[in-house]
Formats: sequence, C-alpha cells, structure tokens
Amino acid sequence: MEFTARQIAEILDGHIQGNPDVSICKLAKIEQGIKGSLSFLSNPLYAKYIYTTKASIVLVNENFIPQKPISTTLIKVKNSYSSFAKFLEIYNQIKPDKKGISKNAFISENAKVGKDVYIGEFTFIGENVSIGKNVKIYPNSYIGDNVSIDDNTIIFAGVKIYSDNIIGKDCIIHAGVVIGADGFGFAPQTDSKYKKIDQIGNVIIEDNVEIGANTTIDRATLNATIIHKGVKLDNLIQIAHNVEIGENTVIAAQTGISGSTKIGKNCMIGGQVGISGHLTIADNVKIAAQSGIMSNLKKNEKVMGSPAFKSSKYKKSYIHFRKLYDIEKRITELEKNDKRTSQNK
Amino acid sequence: MEFTARQIAEILDGHIQGNPDVSICKLAKIEQGIKGSLSFLSNPLYAKYIYTTKASIVLVNENFIPQKPISTTLIKVKNSYSSFAKFLEIYNQIKPDKKGISKNAFISENAKVGKDVYIGEFTFIGENVSIGKNVKIYPNSYIGDNVSIDDNTIIFAGVKIYSDNIIGKDCIIHAGVVIGADGFGFAPQTDSKYKKIDQIGNVIIEDNVEIGANTTIDRATLNATIIHKGVKLDNLIQIAHNVEIGENTVIAAQTGISGSTKIGKNCMIGGQVGISGHLTIADNVKIAAQSGIMSNLKKNEKVMGSPAFKSSKYKKSYIHFRKLYDIEKRITELEKNDKRTSQNK
Amino acid sequence: MEFTARQIAEILDGHIQGNPDVSICKLAKIEQGIKGSLSFLSNPLYAKYIYTTKASIVLVNENFIPQKPISTTLIKVKNSYSSFAKFLEIYNQIKPDKKGISKNAFISENAKVGKDVYIGEFTFIGENVSIGKNVKIYPNSYIGDNVSIDDNTIIFAGVKIYSDNIIGKDCIIHAGVVIGADGFGFAPQTDSKYKKIDQIGNVIIEDNVEIGANTTIDRATLNATIIHKGVKLDNLIQIAHNVEIGENTVIAAQTGISGSTKIGKNCMIGGQVGISGHLTIADNVKIAAQSGIMSNLKKNEKVMGSPAFKSSKYKKSYIHFRKLYDIEKRITELEKNDKRTSQNK
Repeated sequence: MEFTARQIAEILDGHIQGNPDVSICKLAKIEQGIKGSLSFLSNPLYAKYIYTTKASIVLVNENFIPQKPISTTLIKVKNSYSSFAKFLEIYNQIKPDKKGISKNAFISENAKVGKDVYIGEFTFIGENVSIGKNVKIYPNSYIGDNVSIDDNTIIFAGVKIYSDNIIGKDCIIHAGVVIGADGFGFAPQTDSKYKKIDQIGNVIIEDNVEIGANTTIDRATLNATIIHKGVKLDNLIQIAHNVEIGENTVIAAQTGISGSTKIGKNCMIGGQVGISGHLTIADNVKIAAQSGIMSNLKKNEKVMGSPAFKSSKYKKSYIHFRKLYDIEKRITELEKNDKRTSQNK
Repeated sequence: MEFTARQIAEILDGHIQGNPDVSICKLAKIEQGIKGSLSFLSNPLYAKYIYTTKASIVLVNENFIPQKPISTTLIKVKNSYSSFAKFLEIYNQIKPDKKGISKNAFISENAKVGKDVYIGEFTFIGENVSIGKNVKIYPNSYIGDNVSIDDNTIIFAGVKIYSDNIIGKDCIIHAGVVIGADGFGFAPQTDSKYKKIDQIGNVIIEDNVEIGANTTIDRATLNATIIHKGVKLDNLIQIAHNVEIGENTVIAAQTGISGSTKIGKNCMIGGQVGISGHLTIADNVKIAAQSGIMSNLKKNEKVMGSPAFKSSKYKKSYIHFRKLYDIEKRITELEKNDKRTSQNK
Repeated sequence: MEFTARQIAEILDGHIQGNPDVSICKLAKIEQGIKGSLSFLSNPLYAKYIYTTKASIVLVNENFIPQKPISTTLIKVKNSYSSFAKFLEIYNQIKPDKKGISKNAFISENAKVGKDVYIGEFTFIGENVSIGKNVKIYPNSYIGDNVSIDDNTIIFAGVKIYSDNIIGKDCIIHAGVVIGADGFGFAPQTDSKYKKIDQIGNVIIEDNVEIGANTTIDRATLNATIIHKGVKLDNLIQIAHNVEIGENTVIAAQTGISGSTKIGKNCMIGGQVGISGHLTIADNVKIAAQSGIMSNLKKNEKVMGSPAFKSSKYKKSYIHFRKLYDIEKRITELEKNDKRTSQNK
C-alpha cells in the first residue's frame, strides 16, 4: 500500500513542505528512516536526525523551523506524535483484509462456517467444527473434530487444535501453537514401565486471549484446562493439563506451568519461569523472570529466585552471594583471632 | 457420543434413581459438573457437592443415602470410583477411530503403507517411506524420504520428520514435533565465521515412546540420536545430536539436553532442566526442575541447583542463602567485638 | 544411495582387502558400526574395535597390519581420517537434490520464483513473494505476502513466515520455525485489561544465517528485528520484537532474548539463557548456560548466574554456597566463643 504526501496531508489535515508526490509504503523511526518510509519528529532531542534521515516523509509539529536545509518532505501537523499514531491506525485498518474460503482447504461436510470468514490453503477443518463470523484461519492449520471457534478470532498459519477444544471471541492465536495435546500423565508400573493415563478433558480459551507462536496448551485429564478472558501468552510457553489462568494475566516467553496449578487474575509472570503442579497463585502476583515457584503465593506477592521468595529479600541475599568468597575469608580471619584469644587466656 | 442413564446403568450393572432418559456426552469431577456430564461420588468429603452439582448423572456407591433432595440422576454401583474408571475406558475405546487414506494426502509412489492406516489431509509421505499397520498420521504432517514408522504408532497433526529417521511401534508423537533436524554443529573459522558441520546421522525412536507437542530431536552428526523403549518426553523439550536416552526415563517440559550426552534408564528429569554436552547420567537419577547439570551423575543420585549437587545439601544451602543478609550482619557484629577484644588486650 | 567397496576404493584411490562387492549405504563410528555401514580406523586406541565391528567396510591407513583375523572389508588409504571426511563430503554432494515445483503447492500469481527452485507439496506462497534462484522450500510451509527469500536458502518443512519479512542468501531455516509473529506488546488499561499495540515492523534475516527447529523470531513494533550475517541459532529459541543480533554470534537452544535488546558480534550464548529487554550486549561476550542477564555487558565479558556476573567470581561464590550450612555453623561457633569471652571479662 502506497500513500503520497498529498494523501497523508489530507488525512491528517497537515501542510506539505516539499514534494507532494513523493510516496511511502512503510513506517520507520526517524533515526532509522529509509527511502519510501514515513517518520515523525516529536522529541526535540531527535531534531538532529531530520537533516540526515532517509525517510521520504516526516511529520513535524507546525511550529517546527528547520535550522539547515532538509531533503525530506515535511508535513506540518498540530501534534506530530498523535498524528503518526492516527496514521498508523489507519494504515493497519486499510491493510487488505484476508477473505474467502480457499478451494485448497478441506472442510468437513458437517462443519458450520460463519459469514465473512477467511480459510486459507491446505487448512483442515474437522467434523462438527463450528466457526463464527469474521474468523480468519490462515493456511496449513489443523482444526480437529468438534472444535468451536467464536467470532472475530484470528488463527495464523500452521496452528494445530486437537478435537473438542473451545476458542472464544476476538482471540489471536499465532503460528505453530498447539492446543489440546494430551497432558503428560503416566502411571508407574511395577516393572518400571509407565502406563498412559487417558486425557479426555479439553481446553477452553475464553474471549480476547492472545497466544504466542509455538506455545503449547495441553488438554485436561478430566474437565478443562482454562485460559480466562484477556490473558496474554507470549511465545514457546508450556501450559500443562488442568491448569487455569485468571483474567488479564500476562505471561512472558518460555515460561512453563505444571499440571493442575491455578493462577489468579492480573498476574505478571516473567520469562522462563517454572511453576510446579497443584499450586494456587493468587491475584496480582508478580513473578520475576527465571524464577521457580514451588509453593502457593498470596495476593500481591512479588517473588524472585528458584525456589522463589520475596523479591526484595532475594535481592539482598544475592548481594551477599556475590561476595561469599570475601565473607568466608572474614570468617576464617575471625576464627584465627578467636583461636589466638583462647590460647592467650 | 451420547449415553443415557439407562445405557450406563446397563454397562456398569447399576440401579438408576432418577430419570433414566437423561443423557451425557462428557465426563467431569463432581464439583465442576455441568449439564450433560457424568460424574462420580466416592470420597465422603465430596458428598456435599452432590446436592449442588450440575452434572446430569452421578455414579454413587450402593450404600449412599442422600441427606437432602437431589436433582441429578443417580446410578448406584458397587464401587463408584472403579465403575467410573471402567466407563472412562469404554468411552475412549468407542471414540470413532480415524481410518483411511485421504485423497488430499501426497504419498510417493514407492512408499510402503501397511493395513488399516489413517493418513490425513495435506500430509506428505516421501520416497521409500515405510509405514506399518494401524499407523495413524494426522493432517498437515511431513514424513521425509526413507523414514520408517512401525505398527500402531500415532503421529498427530503438523509433525515434521526429516529423511532417514526410524520410529518404533506403539509410539505417540504429538503435534508440531520436529524429528531429525540438523544438529547444532559449526566449526569456527579464522575469520570468526562458522562453517557448518554436515549432520548425516539420524534419529532412532524405539517402541512405546511418547513425545510432547513442539519438542525437537536433532539427528546425529554420525550414527544416531537414540530414544530407547518406553521413554516419555513432555512438550517443548530439546534433544541435541547424538544424545541417547535410556529405557523408561521420563522428562518434563522445556528441558534441554546438549550434544552427545547419554542418559540412563528409569531417570526422572524435571522441567526446564539443562544438561551439558558429553556427559553420562547413570540409571535411576532424579534431577529437580530448573537444575543445570555440568558433570556426570552416578546411579540413584538426586540433584538440584545450577550447577546441580545433592538435593538434600542444596536445600540446606538454600535455607541459609535466604538468610545471607542476616549472616553477614552476624559476621560484622563478631568483627566489632573481635576488634574491641584486641584493643582491650 | 549405495556404494560398493570397489567404487569407494576408486574414489579414494585405495586398495581393497576383502570383498570388493560388499556395499554400504550409511556411515558410522567404528565402535557402533552396523551391517551396511562404512567406518574408519585412525586412532590406534580404537584398533581393538576392528576385530569386532559390524561395519561392512572400514577405511584404514595403508600401514595398518591386523593382529587377528578380520571379517570386515578393509580399504587401505594414505590417511584414513581425511579419506573418510572426503567421502562424507562426496556422499552429501550426490544426495539426490530436491528440484521442481510441486503441483500441490499453492503459488500466488504475482509471486516471482527464481530458477532451479524446489517448492514442496502443500506449501503456500503468498502475493508479491520473491524467491531467488536455487531456493528450496520443503512441504507444508507458509510464506506470507511480500516476503522475499534470496538465493540458495533452504527452508525445511512446516516453516511459517509471516508477511513482509526478508530472508537473505544461503540461509538454512529448520522445520517449525516461525518468523514475524507479532511482538508481545500490550498497553495496560485502567480497567486492568490490555490493549494490543500494533506490530507493523518486520524481520530481516541477513545472509548465511541458520535457524534451529521451532525457534520463533517476532516482527518489530516499528522498523525491524534484525539477525545479521552468519548468526547461528539453535532450536526453540525466542527472539522478541526489535532485537538485533550481531554478525557470527552463536546462541544455544531454548535461550530467550527480550524486546529491543541489541547483541554484538561474535558472542557465544549458552542454552536456556534469558536476556532482559532494552539491553546492549557488546561484541565477543560469553554467557554461560541458564544465566539471566539484567544489565548491559561490555566487550569480552564472560558472565554466569542469574542475575549474571563475572564467571570466575560466580564460580568462587558458588563453591561457598555449596558449604553455606557449614559456614553458618562456623559463625554460630564463633558467636558462642565470643559470648564466653565477653562473660569472662
């Protein structure tokens, strides 16, 4: 999609200074602007870049007066930052929308498909699947039998959803996500082999959830693994069977949550955190990256470390851990003096 | 699949108390029962839920006598827990079995395909591939040239198996697994670039192995990366080139094992563990979650920490780590007294 | 591919001792040789294996004289190790090369496809995609709109590349990789919900980069996430939005790098490392496995721990951490003596 300076000035109610016919097809920061990009100058500290930027068009505040010659085309607006944000929003809205059902998709005869959907090439839609209106499913995805996907949800390429799972409205599921694989449950036998425990529950993803690329969410042994409304999961996260994650909790990449753990609302969980099974993490908990959680956490707790404890205490302990070598030397010194004192007596 | 109370009572040799025509299509715990679900009451502590559960049918022991009115339909059986387990087994057995080869799959002319297989839509089967009887390969999978897959193995959607790898009998490989990608081997050059070392070995998965979603197992540089009989791998695990994992070892999610490490039989390895390359981990070893293993481990060792050492010792050290701030204060106090003592002399 | 002893002797200019018609179809170490494999004996310590190996053919130095009867066929060459390496190279070169565009691939009408490409079954090529010459794209991959892929790059099965990303020459991208999913950016709202921040930048992968299976590289919020020339990424790595990784840096499996962090050239980063956002890691930095990086690192630093500090110091601290229980006992002992001393005065 290309826009000329003239079109942009019209949209943003600005005044052009330079070539009205120059066009852009992407957006960039001013210090990294390249030919064909639109940028903006808001913070005076970045003013120096306007004389060297290769961006084809730069939005500036209407009171901006150049101190040197400028080769880029300027568009003067009331507030360059909010105009840029406004343009960004428009830019995204008019991005050509994927629509239609590919002839190369496979859709079971008894699947129900809503209005205005996009179903891409080589995507498989199983039996009794129900797909809401305005849903987008990109190519090479697998939607197992009896899955339901509610309105406006976007499923990117190569997502695999096992049978019987339920996906809410307005969700975004990124490429390579696996939803509903068997939970990791095995009963040890007397001959040290393991017998698989059937995993016959499912996964329920509520509305407005976003799930990052290659994240895995296992189905429940019985009942459901539940991701509540507004949860945001980053890439490569592992959610085990029967886990429940409360509304609007945010979890960073590569974190793993073991079976049957319940996590509260509005928690913030860093990257590469590990949480043991069968725990209860209350609302508003904050867990630092790489922590290991082995016990329940109360409302508003902030923890760090593996095993994790209060973040402020962990930091204090760690300061002294860094000096343990010196600490040990001080003890040895004290012991020497102590011995001398005893001998002197 | 729906069952009426009448059908279930017949299967389990039970007596109905309530509506014999009510039907269920899923199973649930009593405290989470919903309409259309079958539940059971075994533990007397859960008896209170039977008056409020929304499960349509509940299995109870034949000596159970309600203390209050009950709206759900009861089926009285000798042992409610074992009857539930029996029903669960039946429920799974009669799940409609996937069968047949999709016209939308691609199967090379010289591939050998056994009896009673399922090959789903958009699955690719390369040259000289050999597929045993009763194997199931779900849609969107890729089976490279010369791969062999033995009887009864199930390969879920979107699995990628590179050429020349060998998969045993009765395995379950979950969606998104990658088997046989190149090991991570590069020879540093004098110009600080790296030259790829060809990875021409393969991966051998023995019988009765389960591999979790999005796990990756790299091919060997030479010879084979080997996963022995009965091994269970959770999701998002990384197995590097030339690793060997002994029989019936169980590994939790997000653990990574570096190149050429050999792991014994019957080990239990927690989640997010990292194991360095070229190590030997003996049989029956237990490694706590998030540990980092940098040296060989002997039979029956239990370790924790990064770098890991004996779990019982680690826990002792960690108790004092949590109090390091106080420990340092005690030393400072001792030093003050020590100084006074010396001055007093 | 099969080779007889006669063919191999001819290629390597060697002399056969044994059956010239025996054939091999794979390579193996001498101690693990199986029927149908070619092996070599170079290190005298391994000479004992030549009497028991099941390899069909073994390359030996021309001065090798057996001390016992040998059942395998020998090929005598000047230098058995370099001959083996030479054969390995030939073996790889003549592996049948994948060529041609599958009728079962979907290629948009306005995509540009170079000469001598391979595009496998069920691969999707979006609009305006540009594919260089000699590129290989294996089955079940997804190449979004406007992506460009330069000459000689290999993309294995089931890779997902979102729209607008740029891939250089001579890259290898392994199965299940996701390039260009949305960065993890959400603005907290007053009602504790989160609003998605549009991610409209892209990913640029420069020449000669290798990316391991199921690794994820997110697109930038604005501008680009950049992986510079010669970078090698292992499996299951997470690269967040707007990260930049310098030339020839090598990163081991399951490491995660948070948003906007810049990493220098020639760094070596171990497995399961976590690096916080908005940091600057200079050139030639070495980071030990499982470390957590929470501050900038200078040129040539070697760090370890979480939070990480100088590796040599970390190791010293950790030695004393392992003895913390004893250290505390020593302090308690000193305190007892100290008390006695004060009382004695």
